[in-house]
Amino acid sequence: MSENWLDEVQWDETGLVPAIAQETGSGKILMLAWMNREALRLTVEEGKAIYWSRSRQKLWRKGEESGHEQILKSLRLDCDNDVIVMEVEQKGGIACHTGRHSCFYREFQGGEWKAVEPVLKPEAEIYGKKE
Amino acid sequence: MSENWLDEVQWDETGLVPAIAQETGSGKILMLAWMNREALRLTVEEGKAIYWSRSRQKLWRKGEESGHEQILKSLRLDCDNDVIVMEVEQKGGIACHTGRHSCFYREFQGGEWKAVEPVLKPEAEIYGKKE
Repeated sequence: MSENWLDEVQWDETGLVPAIAQETGSGKILMLAWMNREALRLTVEEGKAIYWSRSRQKLWRKGEESGHEQILKSLRLDCDNDVIVMEVEQKGGIACHTGRHSCFYREFQGGEWKAVEPVLKPEAEIYGKKE
Repeated sequence: MSENWLDEVQWDETGLVPAIAQETGSGKILMLAWMNREALRLTVEEGKAIYWSRSRQKLWRKGEESGHEQILKSLRLDCDNDVIVMEVEQKGGIACHTGRHSCFYREFQGGEWKAVEPVLKPEAEIYGKKE
């Protein structure tokens, strides 16, 4: 497959683009993480969300530890070529490392950020089970 | 109002966070742009999306030219404190400067990015009418 589609993406000065994962069906926004060229290419090749971890400076196959993979349903690019939206099926129904459905679990209410979504599975249980 | 909620946000090295605008009701992702501290504060104060334009290096009151304002319905922060999701009502039903409903109007199909959403209003008409 030609890589023209990858050339069209406007990578930032560090070679990354933000990628939003949106749940298929519900339309809920699960998370935003970053992709470099290889991560985006592999995401398409493998049909699963693969990000670039800025903290660990390496490819991050979402769900590799937790099992909470994101199966790619469709991929979109914005008008400036610098943001990706993925429609995904969220395995386990948990995208967030805190054990919540979505990483956007805090809502601005009365001048504060308040947690408004339940923990579906404790963090220790998510990451402990593979040890 | 205390500004503790603004202190909790993890601004990047340039003082910005990505802010996703999601349409209330439909759940469609309309766009992603950036906010600095002042933009986020004003977004809450004025109840409308106000971004920081990285290209123009100034506050960008969404809709100031086009009339396509985004009325704030709710605001969320993610688990890393570094991404905002706004639920908005999109005035005019057009978020994109190309005259489309969403900026994410291209879908990856057969190795290419293909435009899959119609232009609802030509760009010249959107930006010409105020001149």
